[in-house]
Amino acid sequence: MKVQKFSVSDAKMGKSPGQNAEIYVGNLVDEKDGGPVTIGYGRYAPDQSLTETMEVDDTMIVLEGRLSVCTSNGTVTAARGDIVYMPKGEVVTITTEGEGALTAFVTYPHWATVHKG
Amino acid sequence: MKVQKFSVSDAKMGKSPGQNAEIYVGNLVDEKDGGPVTIGYGRYAPDQSLTETMEVDDTMIVLEGRLSVCTSNGTVTAARGDIVYMPKGEVVTITTEGEGALTAFVTYPHWATVHKG
Repeated sequence: MKVQKFSVSDAKMGKSPGQNAEIYVGNLVDEKDGGPVTIGYGRYAPDQSLTETMEVDDTMIVLEGRLSVCTSNGTVTAARGDIVYMPKGEVVTITTEGEGALTAFVTYPHWATVHKG
Repeated sequence: MKVQKFSVSDAKMGKSPGQNAEIYVGNLVDEKDGGPVTIGYGRYAPDQSLTETMEVDDTMIVLEGRLSVCTSNGTVTAARGDIVYMPKGEVVTITTEGEGALTAFVTYPHWATVHKG
């Protein structure tokens, strides 16, 4: 693959699989591209909540708004410019309040390849 | 590892190894943490230029400012919210102009482990 640049307008956003919240993801680089990582954007409407067991290592960078990530060890809140690292095996609940959030994410390996939901 | 949240103020920024430009990196997660990826922030002063051959897959998210990435296939310019994917093996020249740039990055595998410079 060659060097590529993406903007959020390049992503085709679709509902995140296996859940009903107003949370959308759009991959820009994934298993079809032959590299090790999936890269994309995520958009969370206000007042949403999603609980999942991480099937991959997922690094989330908050570009707009704010979200919280709750685990058995406590809750972290991330705003613009913050990074949340969610290692494989962790059980996380991601919630938004009034603002919603826009994120960029990088997963290793490809989340769609291991996703069973 | 557990879920962790980072802000740019958490990073201890140091000069990017093997080069003399005013470009600083600060890892937050790396090979010492036992996961597959290195995560950190990068800060580029204005009017800097760095050429390197990618030793890892590096995903860069622009948080502030603007930078350009030039390869043999052309140049892309990325501003706030944009993602630049730089696969292993690519030769890139990253340049900033008057604004400089702040980035978040995720590398697979760990850049410091493979870096020979």
